[in-house]
Amino acid sequence: MSIKEKLPSFLEDIEKDLDRTLKFWLENSHDDEFGGFFICLGPDGRVFDETKYTWLECRQVWMYARLYNDLEKYRKPQILQAAIKGADFLKQHMKNPDTMKCCLSMTRDGQPIKIQRTIFSECFYLMAMSELARATGETMYREEALAMMDKILFWVQKDDSQLGKTQLPGNKPYCSLANPMMLLCLIEQMETMDPTLADTYKDSATWCLKEVNKHIQRGGSIILENVSVDGEELAGSNGRLMVPGHAIEAGWFLLQRALKSGDTTLQKTAIDKFIVRPFQTGWDELYGGLFYFLDVDGLSPTQLEWDMKLWWPHNEAMIAFLMAYKATRDEEHLHKFQRVFKYSYSHFVDHCYGDWFGYLNRRGEVKLNFKGGPWKGFFHVPRCQLMCMQLLKDIIASEK
Amino acid sequence: MSIKEKLPSFLEDIEKDLDRTLKFWLENSHDDEFGGFFICLGPDGRVFDETKYTWLECRQVWMYARLYNDLEKYRKPQILQAAIKGADFLKQHMKNPDTMKCCLSMTRDGQPIKIQRTIFSECFYLMAMSELARATGETMYREEALAMMDKILFWVQKDDSQLGKTQLPGNKPYCSLANPMMLLCLIEQMETMDPTLADTYKDSATWCLKEVNKHIQRGGSIILENVSVDGEELAGSNGRLMVPGHAIEAGWFLLQRALKSGDTTLQKTAIDKFIVRPFQTGWDELYGGLFYFLDVDGLSPTQLEWDMKLWWPHNEAMIAFLMAYKATRDEEHLHKFQRVFKYSYSHFVDHCYGDWFGYLNRRGEVKLNFKGGPWKGFFHVPRCQLMCMQLLKDIIASEK
Repeated sequence: MSIKEKLPSFLEDIEKDLDRTLKFWLENSHDDEFGGFFICLGPDGRVFDETKYTWLECRQVWMYARLYNDLEKYRKPQILQAAIKGADFLKQHMKNPDTMKCCLSMTRDGQPIKIQRTIFSECFYLMAMSELARATGETMYREEALAMMDKILFWVQKDDSQLGKTQLPGNKPYCSLANPMMLLCLIEQMETMDPTLADTYKDSATWCLKEVNKHIQRGGSIILENVSVDGEELAGSNGRLMVPGHAIEAGWFLLQRALKSGDTTLQKTAIDKFIVRPFQTGWDELYGGLFYFLDVDGLSPTQLEWDMKLWWPHNEAMIAFLMAYKATRDEEHLHKFQRVFKYSYSHFVDHCYGDWFGYLNRRGEVKLNFKGGPWKGFFHVPRCQLMCMQLLKDIIASEK
Repeated sequence: MSIKEKLPSFLEDIEKDLDRTLKFWLENSHDDEFGGFFICLGPDGRVFDETKYTWLECRQVWMYARLYNDLEKYRKPQILQAAIKGADFLKQHMKNPDTMKCCLSMTRDGQPIKIQRTIFSECFYLMAMSELARATGETMYREEALAMMDKILFWVQKDDSQLGKTQLPGNKPYCSLANPMMLLCLIEQMETMDPTLADTYKDSATWCLKEVNKHIQRGGSIILENVSVDGEELAGSNGRLMVPGHAIEAGWFLLQRALKSGDTTLQKTAIDKFIVRPFQTGWDELYGGLFYFLDVDGLSPTQLEWDMKLWWPHNEAMIAFLMAYKATRDEEHLHKFQRVFKYSYSHFVDHCYGDWFGYLNRRGEVKLNFKGGPWKGFFHVPRCQLMCMQLLKDIIASEK
């Protein structure tokens, strides 16, 4: 059977898997007493910690709203109501209305536990509000998203002193891939909510692309996670760090942008430099799967979890290779997609209780068996499932 | 051969190993240009990052001074000079003279990169100064240590607002084992510098013992890392956390105190509850070695590195079981010592370049191959070697 003939079967498997994942979170994560979602769910869905991690709270709202908006099958009042209830809990508890700063974690009843000196909680808050504005048509959510976008752009591009970071002489500013990537994702989100905003954020999008490109290093052969403000390599472990899953995620963000604008140079950069090369470098030839962290010079990373196989890089790679195939019709991308699919469905997917395990050791054995935890919720897995379904449907339709 | 007959051979192996460890750090870590020590050393001693992590800078000063003070063989000007040069670099760069707050990391030339909102950098600064005061007899170092001790006691027991922690309503204060353990270690250090200080810190020592005891939970069967201010179990993952290596380290701190004061109840608590039980719970029966983190209810810990075998819990266990044997002459402790010794010398010790590897996967394979890094330097390994040598010598002498 040719690989192209297998596309309908991939689609079928992924669709069933999304059903299971959604069911798992609908049944186990809703806090009917206080609102919001339980995030820390054991392998069978039991709550093992009541802390509400806001990145995941926001992403769950976003994901419900996105499923409602994009898939006929899930355009159900139950899904929309879950998104609205989640968003209302966040609006009530997560944000300081004066400073717009959002907390990172809360108690079950919404009291802030931790606040980070970064922009990410705020970014995910915006994502939730923006997608829900699209689902409900309510201006209240739209205005929350617009106001937060202005604030984030101000922090990133003009003045980040309000974030409360201590300025120390030894801590020189540097560029991390996460910031422009995140911003690019927000711009995409705002344009999805309202296409007429494309013009408003045009300059910011250009700025993001320029910033992301700084991370292409060593003659275009690799993507480094952190570089100097001038786009040079940084000394030390931090400078040599590669995060293959992150580069690949940036790759499909860029590719999405390139396809929208018809920018073929950007398309080639996205595929060759951000998707294909990091995948080749990041794939573990011995045991399969993508490493979490690598050192570009082959030294030992200092992160204790460097050789673990995490679920989300595999989600990003599945999206990236289907998107690359759709853009180029180069079957090599389909073969890569298949490699990640096979690894994931034989290692990460829990065919018993549903959803994916998140954390495997290098050999691919489940090492942390929960489905939701401080950094994993209802987001990367269903986003991947939804996007892969959409991509596969488009591809299958166009090749008939 | 009975286990007691093996004691001289353990002593010989450990003494040779200390020689190799010391040589490794003397040859590779000294920064002759800027002062202080390179911490990030690869498997063969090559510097892979120039960041100066101050916990390790301070501990290296302490360790050199302690070796100089305690072992005839190492009472050499070269060792003392290395300690002095290191301490001078720290005095010059690490501490804010107005607030007494110390940084966590510095650039090679001593510019602060990070400051933590905890007391630990300051504690290690005190340790360095105090032991060097003992080695040199210089009042300058003694006064640094005394002033820092006052400040730390103030922060821990009276008012920690100067540490700069943000007070958030959801973040209720709780007790972590690290604080009273650390303080107990400081008191021991100050008394070693000057035995007449025992009276000065008597109340603080009593307070520490009371605090440490709060962590004995579930009918005395286990030690929990975090408990409520009232000594009750906390909800969630943080409340269920056990760190076997940490409990065992606390165990020998307590045992040392019990032996000094002749407190037999404390001795029994230290051995039974802090050393023997956490060792039994923490030992991996499948692959050997001590787990890093465990959940008391057998759920998956949320720390990605939970099942790794780190060097330092094994260092603590070696000290603890020799000390327990010396106190009780119960050979069961010697057998446990032997079990840890064998595991360590066949997994952690680098017989080629010297020093120990720090980070193994669950199966005991080296996963991060550096000898020094952000959290590993010249401290746990040589402290263990020195203390085990002293304990073995005492035991051998007393059993002749």
